[in-house]
Amino acid sequence: MSTLTLFSPAGALPAATPLRRAAKRLASWGFEVSIDADALSRDQRFAGADATRLAAFHRIAKAAPDVALATRGGYGCTRLLDQLDWKAIAHSVEHGTRWVGYSDFTAFQNALIAHAKGLATWAGPLACSDFGRSEAEGGVDDITQDCFLEAMSGALEAVGFRESGAPRGTQPFDGLEARGLLWGGNLTVLCALLSTPHFPKVKGGVLFLEDVGEHPYRVERMLLQLQQAGVIDAQAAVLLGDFSGWTRQSTDRGYGLKDAVASLRARTRTPVLTGLPMGHCATKVCLPVGAKVDLFVQGREVILGWQSDHRLAHRHAHSEAAHAH
Amino acid sequence: MSTLTLFSPAGALPAATPLRRAAKRLASWGFEVSIDADALSRDQRFAGADATRLAAFHRIAKAAPDVALATRGGYGCTRLLDQLDWKAIAHSVEHGTRWVGYSDFTAFQNALIAHAKGLATWAGPLACSDFGRSEAEGGVDDITQDCFLEAMSGALEAVGFRESGAPRGTQPFDGLEARGLLWGGNLTVLCALLSTPHFPKVKGGVLFLEDVGEHPYRVERMLLQLQQAGVIDAQAAVLLGDFSGWTRQSTDRGYGLKDAVASLRARTRTPVLTGLPMGHCATKVCLPVGAKVDLFVQGREVILGWQSDHRLAHRHAHSEAAHAH
Repeated sequence: MSTLTLFSPAGALPAATPLRRAAKRLASWGFEVSIDADALSRDQRFAGADATRLAAFHRIAKAAPDVALATRGGYGCTRLLDQLDWKAIAHSVEHGTRWVGYSDFTAFQNALIAHAKGLATWAGPLACSDFGRSEAEGGVDDITQDCFLEAMSGALEAVGFRESGAPRGTQPFDGLEARGLLWGGNLTVLCALLSTPHFPKVKGGVLFLEDVGEHPYRVERMLLQLQQAGVIDAQAAVLLGDFSGWTRQSTDRGYGLKDAVASLRARTRTPVLTGLPMGHCATKVCLPVGAKVDLFVQGREVILGWQSDHRLAHRHAHSEAAHAH
Repeated sequence: MSTLTLFSPAGALPAATPLRRAAKRLASWGFEVSIDADALSRDQRFAGADATRLAAFHRIAKAAPDVALATRGGYGCTRLLDQLDWKAIAHSVEHGTRWVGYSDFTAFQNALIAHAKGLATWAGPLACSDFGRSEAEGGVDDITQDCFLEAMSGALEAVGFRESGAPRGTQPFDGLEARGLLWGGNLTVLCALLSTPHFPKVKGGVLFLEDVGEHPYRVERMLLQLQQAGVIDAQAAVLLGDFSGWTRQSTDRGYGLKDAVASLRARTRTPVLTGLPMGHCATKVCLPVGAKVDLFVQGREVILGWQSDHRLAHRHAHSEAAHAH
């Protein structure tokens, strides 16, 4: 049975019910669930003071459960980056811990790439946001659940989606193949690392981005910054996920997300694909942040693949060998 | 009579009336006002396509009026930075043109420091936003008007304000003296330049910051980024202006702007002063972005001074000398 610890690295949980509901569901799916001692702590808008949340990170890294799943995002991880013990985090990953989350968690995930190369964490659900909703609130999305369970078992080795942002009748990325380090996550949070020691220097990578509540002109400004910083041009591909929760303005006069994407495409030769099911949306895949991935496009179908969990495969081989003896 | 050109470097003007009203007022204050041919152009949310707005910059730089006053902010200057002819802009400044604006204009102003050292532009009003309001909408703020007129005449050589963010009964910056290059402006727009060739590398400077519509946790995240990037620690002082237009969230639990400021102060030895009358507020001073300034604090009173306009002083001396002959 896989051990799974729920913890709160950033924003305080407004209520305990979604956490309990998520824990119950995860247990029903076969995990041995524990809730970190400070998962429900509060300090203003944070899930405890910085020292409290840092201690949680280090406590979990030491215990090295199979899964360390963040409860929610908010804001708070960037505050911890200077003090995080990256060796301890790296040690836990090497011992099999899968750290999972998205949104504000992007800061932690990409800083880990900057501080300890070759280790992957998982962009995937947040416990309360994705597994804590009551049935009346929509319950759990089937694909999100299946993908998470498969990824946590070590079996997930690819996700597929349909490129959605090209003009009608065109398939501009048909035949595209790329291989590189997968990184990224929330666009605002990633851009908040630029120029700091926590921004990973990835060349030839596959950069995925999503955001919520950011008007397209702000999305464009951030994409433009990444391009002007040389980051976009240095990638093998950019995958755009969900950009939702923004409000049209009277001053837009037709300007929208497609224009923001078009503006980026006009500035770079790097393929910019859209439609990745990742972000602040109900249906989201799991992605190994910091792992080497292979990207294939056929028509409008995009496949993102990676080698399934070596360590687990190794472990399985061992136990099968033991079984055979 | 000073010549003044109104132009639109970023967002489209929703209506012509505020522009006409501003032009009329500026004329009544003694300027020979011209309106750039594309000041009312529109392309989606922009005041004309990038090429149109670039051409306006270069047309004005060539004409070199005494004052080049932006009509409004929005979003758009960062799109132009790669293509702007910085030599032409620098040439206009050397020939006496005072470029004036704030908000999105921050991108242009700080990029000029990055590309052509030793030249100042002016953080100050925007024509439509500050001088385009009808009397029913509040009209023109007296201090904003006086400060602008004095700055444009070349006479303004200091502004004063009261430090407002310290705990009661304390005067932590009493006696502070600093001298350095003044730079900054809108926090979001400045941060959008980080890691790009357009971010100025200023050491020992006086960095001023303001923003609108950004929740304190976002302000904190950006200040934290500047600190983690080494920018804050490298400054002689940081001056915070107006941060308004944001909405409290139920998850704040008491967290607000003061906490964002406290968080920055806890991370740096650089004095972080508050209360600068600059930003998206009615009453704003004019500040020479890119000029050397002297900062003095007595009790809670802050004085920011600079050498008044040498070129103009020189010109006046000439005409007085001519008069005397």
